[in-house]
Amino acid sequence: MPSPAFSTDCSSSSTARFLPFTRSSVNRSATAVFLRSPIHHVAAPPPAVSTSLKIRTFVVRSSATSSSHAASVAANDTSSSAKVIDGKLVAKQIREEIAVEVAKMKEATGVVPGLAVILVGDRKDSATYVRNKKKACDSVGIKSFEAKLPEDSTEEEVLKFISEFNNDSSVHGILVQLPLPPHMDEQKILNAVTIEKDVDGFHPLNIGRLAMRGREPLFVPCTPKGCIELLHRYGVQIKGKRAVVIGRSNIVGMPAALLLQREDATVSIVHSRTKNPEEITKQADIIISAVGQPNMVRGSWIKPGAVVIDVGINPVEDASSPRGYKLVGDVCYEEACKVASAVTPVPGGVGPMTIAMLLSNTLSSAKRVEIEWLGK
Amino acid sequence: MPSPAFSTDCSSSSTARFLPFTRSSVNRSATAVFLRSPIHHVAAPPPAVSTSLKIRTFVVRSSATSSSHAASVAANDTSSSAKVIDGKLVAKQIREEIAVEVAKMKEATGVVPGLAVILVGDRKDSATYVRNKKKACDSVGIKSFEAKLPEDSTEEEVLKFISEFNNDSSVHGILVQLPLPPHMDEQKILNAVTIEKDVDGFHPLNIGRLAMRGREPLFVPCTPKGCIELLHRYGVQIKGKRAVVIGRSNIVGMPAALLLQREDATVSIVHSRTKNPEEITKQADIIISAVGQPNMVRGSWIKPGAVVIDVGINPVEDASSPRGYKLVGDVCYEEACKVASAVTPVPGGVGPMTIAMLLSNTLSSAKRVEIEWLGK
Repeated sequence: MPSPAFSTDCSSSSTARFLPFTRSSVNRSATAVFLRSPIHHVAAPPPAVSTSLKIRTFVVRSSATSSSHAASVAANDTSSSAKVIDGKLVAKQIREEIAVEVAKMKEATGVVPGLAVILVGDRKDSATYVRNKKKACDSVGIKSFEAKLPEDSTEEEVLKFISEFNNDSSVHGILVQLPLPPHMDEQKILNAVTIEKDVDGFHPLNIGRLAMRGREPLFVPCTPKGCIELLHRYGVQIKGKRAVVIGRSNIVGMPAALLLQREDATVSIVHSRTKNPEEITKQADIIISAVGQPNMVRGSWIKPGAVVIDVGINPVEDASSPRGYKLVGDVCYEEACKVASAVTPVPGGVGPMTIAMLLSNTLSSAKRVEIEWLGK
Repeated sequence: MPSPAFSTDCSSSSTARFLPFTRSSVNRSATAVFLRSPIHHVAAPPPAVSTSLKIRTFVVRSSATSSSHAASVAANDTSSSAKVIDGKLVAKQIREEIAVEVAKMKEATGVVPGLAVILVGDRKDSATYVRNKKKACDSVGIKSFEAKLPEDSTEEEVLKFISEFNNDSSVHGILVQLPLPPHMDEQKILNAVTIEKDVDGFHPLNIGRLAMRGREPLFVPCTPKGCIELLHRYGVQIKGKRAVVIGRSNIVGMPAALLLQREDATVSIVHSRTKNPEEITKQADIIISAVGQPNMVRGSWIKPGAVVIDVGINPVEDASSPRGYKLVGDVCYEEACKVASAVTPVPGGVGPMTIAMLLSNTLSSAKRVEIEWLGK
């Protein structure tokens, strides 16, 4: 998949260009992918959705359920036949469900779930991500903890905070905001987080359990979990279907493939060494793309009626935008809309799901502790 | 993949029938797969092969290197165009290489690698497997340890032995012979083996590291490791190739797929819920089949020129055999020979590689300990 072959924009009249920092948008921490896009915070809020809807039966069938918000997300798509998979709407619904669960837990046990975030240094983007995580926690009643250390801290100082959070029973999930300063050994620091609080789900033991039949991971990585949750909530059958995952990163592509396989899809993984990605992708009933290449997946790659989940959030130059850039996915959205049966927009698709899944993992962790405590 | 659709024998004149214990041949411990076939111990020894051959450059090109043994393995195949991938020959070569390494290690450090096997109960097949592991160790100079416990032992007694082997610095690998008596919690007992001595490579932490880019497992499961080793030694290019793994067991199919992906193949996993296994398999340049279905993969499933690695060892009734049965693979060997460019026979293909890889893992473990010791 040589990158020069792919158009950076699938509207031929566009002057958009691939910005140099695009590739990192998928390779960074999953949560960062979500928080990269400030557009989530300026868009109009989605309409209220009843939280009594059952998780597996919430099927968007028409504009009645795809909502006015979904319609606004797909505003540029004038010839769409695909359903819009509205991640922003679903994420809001999930946050509401989590808020209800958190309130119930508090009432029954006096305990609220707690999420700790460790931030080292003064990166502005990292500070924004951490602030947004805190906001998201606040919105559902999860208690947030923050350790903010200066750029020139030692590894030992960071490890001391991790150790304290590991031992603090009011903390159920721990996130170390990446990237860490270059003088720190990232793997050593991440490995210090106890697996019982690894809400990012990146610990190799969690990944191993995810890969193995008959084993259960304590946590599933947030972005791929969000992709599968979107398929579930839109009633997309996975069992027995052909699925292609484009990209094999540790944080999205690989765990997404493992999750699809757990649900009995027949999975193929397309990556940078694949010689005929278009041909293979075109066989898929379900496509999950997570490569960070703007508009790489064209309409011609998509089997008519396929469901397309686009994880890429790629900033490309856009002179018409006041910010000078716009965000596009790995998939050429306009073309996909004409071929696919359902597609996630960018932004407003997978992105909002990542932080919703982080909250979900934190809640699960707290529930597990309470259940274990009750069992004693 | 409904099993009734598959012939139990691809020779139409045969009266062979699928024996009821076939499915377990792939689902049991990897080492058991190798040792199931007594034929390895009665066949004529392969001709001597120089151990000075470099691992990656040993390419079997013709009868000159495929050897008289390989020719005898493929004796029934009168119209073959495929190379025979001679696992018995390669396994012998690997054992010879290991013997050289063990001798060098002993000379340099005074240490020899040690493998401990724990056997609980009186199962005759298990006793045979353990005896054969001991023989294999002896043949390369690896010290073997054995703990034999009665059928009615308690879990605590087994755990005590594991703990002793965990703490014994002369033991570098620990195997618990499966199956354990039904009153024991297999997962609990297997989890007690320290990851540094998990030469079977089944620990979820090893599997997780195998799945993750940039991480290295301490041990790779023996049977899939043997499959990849055969591809390497026969000069089969993996990078950029389409590979299909049939079967997704924790001990063969899943780790085989992860290994192929680590080597930059484009991997698809076909399993019991796959609707069109033939169509997908036919796209593969490399096929690894590990399902335990005799002769399931027919010639029509194979792309001309593909390389076929057959992990299945399935006993089928055979009135013409003095034993009353014969062993066949998942792949219809006669048909595969006419289509594939190279194919492993059953027996004599993947089977002998499994125990060679077990010895290799034990040697690696001992080397790692010595290197760590030297580093202190």
